[in-house]
Amino acid sequence: MIKDITKKIIKIDQELIKKTQDRLDNLTKPQGSLGRLEELAKLIVGITGKESPEFSNKVIFTLVSDHGVCEERVSAFPQEVTAQMVYNFLSGGAGINVLAKHIGARVVVADVGVAADLKAHPNLIIRKINYGTKNMARESAMTRAEAIKSIETGIEIFEAEFKNGIDIIGTGEMGIANTTASSAITALFTKRSVEDVVGRGTGIDDSALENKIRVINTALKINDPDSSDAIDVLGKVGGFEIGGLAGIILAASSRRIPVVIDGFISAASALIAYGIEPKVKEYMIAAHNSVEKGHKAILDYLGLEALLDLKMRLGEGTGACLGIGLAEAAIKILTQMNTFESAKVSEKIKS
Amino acid sequence: MIKDITKKIIKIDQELIKKTQDRLDNLTKPQGSLGRLEELAKLIVGITGKESPEFSNKVIFTLVSDHGVCEERVSAFPQEVTAQMVYNFLSGGAGINVLAKHIGARVVVADVGVAADLKAHPNLIIRKINYGTKNMARESAMTRAEAIKSIETGIEIFEAEFKNGIDIIGTGEMGIANTTASSAITALFTKRSVEDVVGRGTGIDDSALENKIRVINTALKINDPDSSDAIDVLGKVGGFEIGGLAGIILAASSRRIPVVIDGFISAASALIAYGIEPKVKEYMIAAHNSVEKGHKAILDYLGLEALLDLKMRLGEGTGACLGIGLAEAAIKILTQMNTFESAKVSEKIKS
Repeated sequence: MIKDITKKIIKIDQELIKKTQDRLDNLTKPQGSLGRLEELAKLIVGITGKESPEFSNKVIFTLVSDHGVCEERVSAFPQEVTAQMVYNFLSGGAGINVLAKHIGARVVVADVGVAADLKAHPNLIIRKINYGTKNMARESAMTRAEAIKSIETGIEIFEAEFKNGIDIIGTGEMGIANTTASSAITALFTKRSVEDVVGRGTGIDDSALENKIRVINTALKINDPDSSDAIDVLGKVGGFEIGGLAGIILAASSRRIPVVIDGFISAASALIAYGIEPKVKEYMIAAHNSVEKGHKAILDYLGLEALLDLKMRLGEGTGACLGIGLAEAAIKILTQMNTFESAKVSEKIKS
Repeated sequence: MIKDITKKIIKIDQELIKKTQDRLDNLTKPQGSLGRLEELAKLIVGITGKESPEFSNKVIFTLVSDHGVCEERVSAFPQEVTAQMVYNFLSGGAGINVLAKHIGARVVVADVGVAADLKAHPNLIIRKINYGTKNMARESAMTRAEAIKSIETGIEIFEAEFKNGIDIIGTGEMGIANTTASSAITALFTKRSVEDVVGRGTGIDDSALENKIRVINTALKINDPDSSDAIDVLGKVGGFEIGGLAGIILAASSRRIPVVIDGFISAASALIAYGIEPKVKEYMIAAHNSVEKGHKAILDYLGLEALLDLKMRLGEGTGACLGIGLAEAAIKILTQMNTFESAKVSEKIKS
């Protein structure tokens, strides 16, 4: 299934991007004066292949899973919070709900590996790969089959929602201890030391941070993942939500849907997707720089520049919502502004 | 009138800000994890004095005026564009219209000094101080009486619109050659050289940039404005829209309305308002860093940190719109998220 999807991912349309530049240059503003909004508009046209995209359907995928490595006390919050937050998402009172509503997006919540049986809810997709990953500091977080299944599950979740209409997506996640897994993935792909890419997650203190670094180094040592094999990395030190989001990124790219990457964990998923098929990079929009320093390491590695830098570190898709708001503004500039000719405004003096 | 307004400007409510911090810390997210959105929410509460502000009425004030210094060929566009752009604003097809609609804001367009008689329009406020300023490279841009009148006109425009409801405002402007006036104001207040604060405006080339620097230095030399007297500065090297916006900033502050500062010219207006009454600074939110380097010089001088850095340089209030979008997101986080208790989510493990 993964190969079928990656085969469908094409290069974005550079011809249409050039044409869009001309169109932007004829709008009633000095050329280039809307800066990154103009760049964003062109990118979205190139991704979608549509001269005048519209964002009627904005979707945030918030995938949730637990991490066995949580037992190494790498997080400031207890594991039970993962399940509790799912109910919070479903009640509409979490950060992601508020910001998704602000930009007019739907939130798709999926349990891909919470370590507890969750109550059924009409808005909850239950596609558990397992009840959390294993503790990567002692053994492989998952089997290779589970790693593949997590990606395939993401693809299926995307494809099911795609039937309801999707014009742009944001990635989101929740899972106590998932910055630990993301740091391991980041260190592997970017070839940086763990110290260089690890952060305080939900807010651990200095000694807990030292412990977190130790735990990640142990996990990398005993599992020895092959960074040239993204599925190996995902299986040994990843998470089910990370694999699921990688699948969503691949599937969205195959459908020519722009992917707005949220924070550090989402960016780690982007690394996995990129490891599987480098062409996905062209479909990615980096919403923001999070406080987790590994996030910047990933964006640098992928050559992406974040739109926002608001010192956020919540995840869930919250930063992606703000990024989608800007992307929509960019598209409206392209499609709703007057041209010099239609507005009868004089053009620049030829020098 | 200016004194009456400044007397009404009080310090923002630090007690309420502290209380809001506690409230934010009880929401279902790691403490501080929404970064600058949380800071923004607190600031808006402190400004408005409302524990749960709502942004039902968002207003962009786009003030338009001409500049006599335009005859020194400091702009890439001809002066007639100022008037043409007013009609573009009224037709709804300019950048500001598109972005204001995106965030659900009204745009108030006012002619405070266009060098042509504009056709009446139900959405156009005509409060001309004069038909453009004089050429500041040869004489004072305006009389002291005109400088005062421009500020008072801004106050009156704000107060008239305030009757229709205002919860937050963005500043905006249009006026060919107004980066020239703004650069002069910025050099004076920040005590930097003209070279350090001047930019390419709508897009002039190297030789035009050299000319622009020469023109500004001449204007500063022949007029010798007193930087300890903001009205003197405004009168000698300012513009009617710059004075008008300073009045709007003062009036909004006196009504405890948050002021989202747009780009370079708006920031120059903020300098004038700050020169008249330093307390206004607490009411300001810097939307973005524009490409015009003088903008950053002003923000540094005022101690403001921009929310966005999108390489924009259009003005009109376009950056302010994006800033208001973020401010509204911040307020919704504060007022719409669940608490740990209400959502039955476990709190952080005590270390």
